Amino acid sequence: MADSESISLRSSNCIVEIPERCPWTLINIPFGVFTHERNMDEPHIATAIGSFVVDLNRFVGHFSSFSFDTQTLKQPTLNDFMQLDRTCWQEVRRVIQQQLTDSSSVLAAQKSDIMFPMDECTMLMPARIGDYTDFYSSIWHATNVGKLFRSEEEALKPNWLHMPVGYHGRASSVVVSGTNINRPMGQLMPKGATAPIWGSCNLLDFEVEVAAFYGGKPNDMGRRITIEEAPDHVFGVVLMNDWSARDIQKWEYVPLGPFNGKNFATTISPWIVTMDALELFKCDMIPQNQQGKVPLPYLQSDALTSYDVNLGVSLTTAKGTSEQLGKTNTCNLYWTFTQQLTHHSSSGCPMKPGDLLGSGTISGRNHGEYGSMLELCSYSDSGEKKAWSFPYTLSDGDSRTSIQDGDTITMTGFCQKGDLFLGFGECTGLVLPPRLIAKQ
Amino acid sequence: MADSESISLRSSNCIVEIPERCPWTLINIPFGVFTHERNMDEPHIATAIGSFVVDLNRFVGHFSSFSFDTQTLKQPTLNDFMQLDRTCWQEVRRVIQQQLTDSSSVLAAQKSDIMFPMDECTMLMPARIGDYTDFYSSIWHATNVGKLFRSEEEALKPNWLHMPVGYHGRASSVVVSGTNINRPMGQLMPKGATAPIWGSCNLLDFEVEVAAFYGGKPNDMGRRITIEEAPDHVFGVVLMNDWSARDIQKWEYVPLGPFNGKNFATTISPWIVTMDALELFKCDMIPQNQQGKVPLPYLQSDALTSYDVNLGVSLTTAKGTSEQLGKTNTCNLYWTFTQQLTHHSSSGCPMKPGDLLGSGTISGRNHGEYGSMLELCSYSDSGEKKAWSFPYTLSDGDSRTSIQDGDTITMTGFCQKGDLFLGFGECTGLVLPPRLIAKQ
Repeated sequence: MADSESISLRSSNCIVEIPERCPWTLINIPFGVFTHERNMDEPHIATAIGSFVVDLNRFVGHFSSFSFDTQTLKQPTLNDFMQLDRTCWQEVRRVIQQQLTDSSSVLAAQKSDIMFPMDECTMLMPARIGDYTDFYSSIWHATNVGKLFRSEEEALKPNWLHMPVGYHGRASSVVVSGTNINRPMGQLMPKGATAPIWGSCNLLDFEVEVAAFYGGKPNDMGRRITIEEAPDHVFGVVLMNDWSARDIQKWEYVPLGPFNGKNFATTISPWIVTMDALELFKCDMIPQNQQGKVPLPYLQSDALTSYDVNLGVSLTTAKGTSEQLGKTNTCNLYWTFTQQLTHHSSSGCPMKPGDLLGSGTISGRNHGEYGSMLELCSYSDSGEKKAWSFPYTLSDGDSRTSIQDGDTITMTGFCQKGDLFLGFGECTGLVLPPRLIAKQ
Repeated sequence: MADSESISLRSSNCIVEIPERCPWTLINIPFGVFTHERNMDEPHIATAIGSFVVDLNRFVGHFSSFSFDTQTLKQPTLNDFMQLDRTCWQEVRRVIQQQLTDSSSVLAAQKSDIMFPMDECTMLMPARIGDYTDFYSSIWHATNVGKLFRSEEEALKPNWLHMPVGYHGRASSVVVSGTNINRPMGQLMPKGATAPIWGSCNLLDFEVEVAAFYGGKPNDMGRRITIEEAPDHVFGVVLMNDWSARDIQKWEYVPLGPFNGKNFATTISPWIVTMDALELFKCDMIPQNQQGKVPLPYLQSDALTSYDVNLGVSLTTAKGTSEQLGKTNTCNLYWTFTQQLTHHSSSGCPMKPGDLLGSGTISGRNHGEYGSMLELCSYSDSGEKKAWSFPYTLSDGDSRTSIQDGDTITMTGFCQKGDLFLGFGECTGLVLPPRLIAKQ
């Protein structure tokens, strides 16, 4: 974006008011899916501006000049639109921005028909997720966790600095922000016991992540996506809370990885912030030569970049007390979205529009920058390590070593650079007790 | 099935000829999806009898008396039909069987319109797979693999006898029998090297498995499926080859499990054999008290059963030589389909019609009963163990320690009990070299 463009996209030029620190600015233009009880029978694709949802299903009906099939924007999910080329996503973005900065535009004239107050709308899953993958790409998180079991020098497993390590997750359990989460039941191996028991998870945790949606054409099975092609296949990014049942996970995960400790719920924020929006907030990467280990050529490109997205996670108790648990940033990711995608498809694995790639828990190096209770409660303020025994003290005098029933975990994210600001909205979920059923 | 029913379902009572050892008998009535070039624009749901495909899309049009919405059988995949109750699946099965044994039936009269010679038809994926999970439930396979790394006494990991250990696989890479498989590329850590290289998989393997399709209503997230409910949620079973890149897998899988070593391809047979068909071939389970370890009550039920399905795997080389590599049986599974499903959903994980649950490699205890090259080439005929160094000698004098380009791996399965016989057809795939792309 040229400077002149970013000036014309100042909030003061918008046809609707954009409050200070509102996530939905002219440089954002995220994509999502919503319903409005009185106005539609089925979900519509939308963008957000100020305190309004802009119904893109109705919006595109007013324009005949789009270069692509606008039926893709009249679907109940974004999958078909995601399958178009990046140039089409950019075209829609430009037209929306132009319409939102022109008081004589079609959108301005049709405002009451096309724009709805956000608080009247219900946000839904933005896409049908075909497959969901979760990576483990934050170097500080991997180090913080590794140090609990090994020395600092050996904290990272031998493969970690050579590839974005990841695993296949459960697509059916990815839900939209606001969905209540039942504490899972499962097999637990109590400390010192010789046999497992059946019971409620006792170590429920959150994980602060972001996740990228695959866009563009699917690759044929067997045909990998190169690091040069990858940028055109990242549609955009959401916040993600990868809820984790640490005690279930600990007993089950050797040798095949996380399973029931993860597949009970993963929450994402509803608005997808595009890579074109994030373009303004590129930042330096952590040099990819740690311990003298440099990625293989198939993962290298001059276009690699990190992004400066500020992330926060807070806990609100049933009593209403709200506490910030951690602040972190996507620049703590060692591996980029494009490297994750390139590595994932390097086997020939078929990728489809709507597939979701989670970053893995994003933590900083220090206390206050952790993206999980596992880290928060295993290290003291001064960095002393213990096995999950430092309770986090809340301002109402209560404390936590794990998430309790009635707790709400909320993640937020924003980018700021001078006058330029955009946000991701919220990714939130309330934890409820396990769902008991008559037949145990 | 009462004895009188099984007598009336003898092949001699069928309106079409059923050759000796033909998989598609009156007691089978599998479900699949096919196309016929000259006769239809889109895929139709079907069953198989003798050497014919029976078009169920057209078949149901002749009956108004079904108790359920027959539109579910007029779809291009089985997902909607799978979502009905088990009683509906049974109803269709009964009507088909009745029509196939009555020479004055509607089906007999409309044969030329409804039935197609199988060799004119192309079989497709029977369902859209939402999520695909792979278990590790054969006790001999887990023991054979464990013994390569540990002592016989410690071959099974501590959790193995307490739960069906499993992991989430990649749904997008599950393909129907007959699909060619490109050898994957990936990161490999050569023996003695200090850094990984990029290259073609050198240790391509097959895994003999069966896989169950989930049927019936989805469970709400958080609401687990009990062991008593589970039998009504297993629609049926297919053969599965879980292609594995052992060298890629070895370097990547710690700590999060298999990833690119698996997600390049998984092949399934096209015809789903229902649990009602398999009912006749129940057999005793391996007693679930090995090493004195008994499953927790949530995994116990009087209705647990094993099935006597004979499995075979063969290799056909580019020269045309064909060799049987192994013979095994599903009775080598320690954990049942219903236990796998119950454990999977015990966290509250949402299960949907069309979800696929693989059994894990099925091996017997001895040479000749192995379900993978990993086992075949790590143990001598006399049981001596080595790290993957015993080549398998082919009758043309050639030998294999892993699958080569040009090799075709074919799995078959059948059940036999006295006069009663049914088959699963074939699960086959030809291995091709990696797909090279201009831009490396």
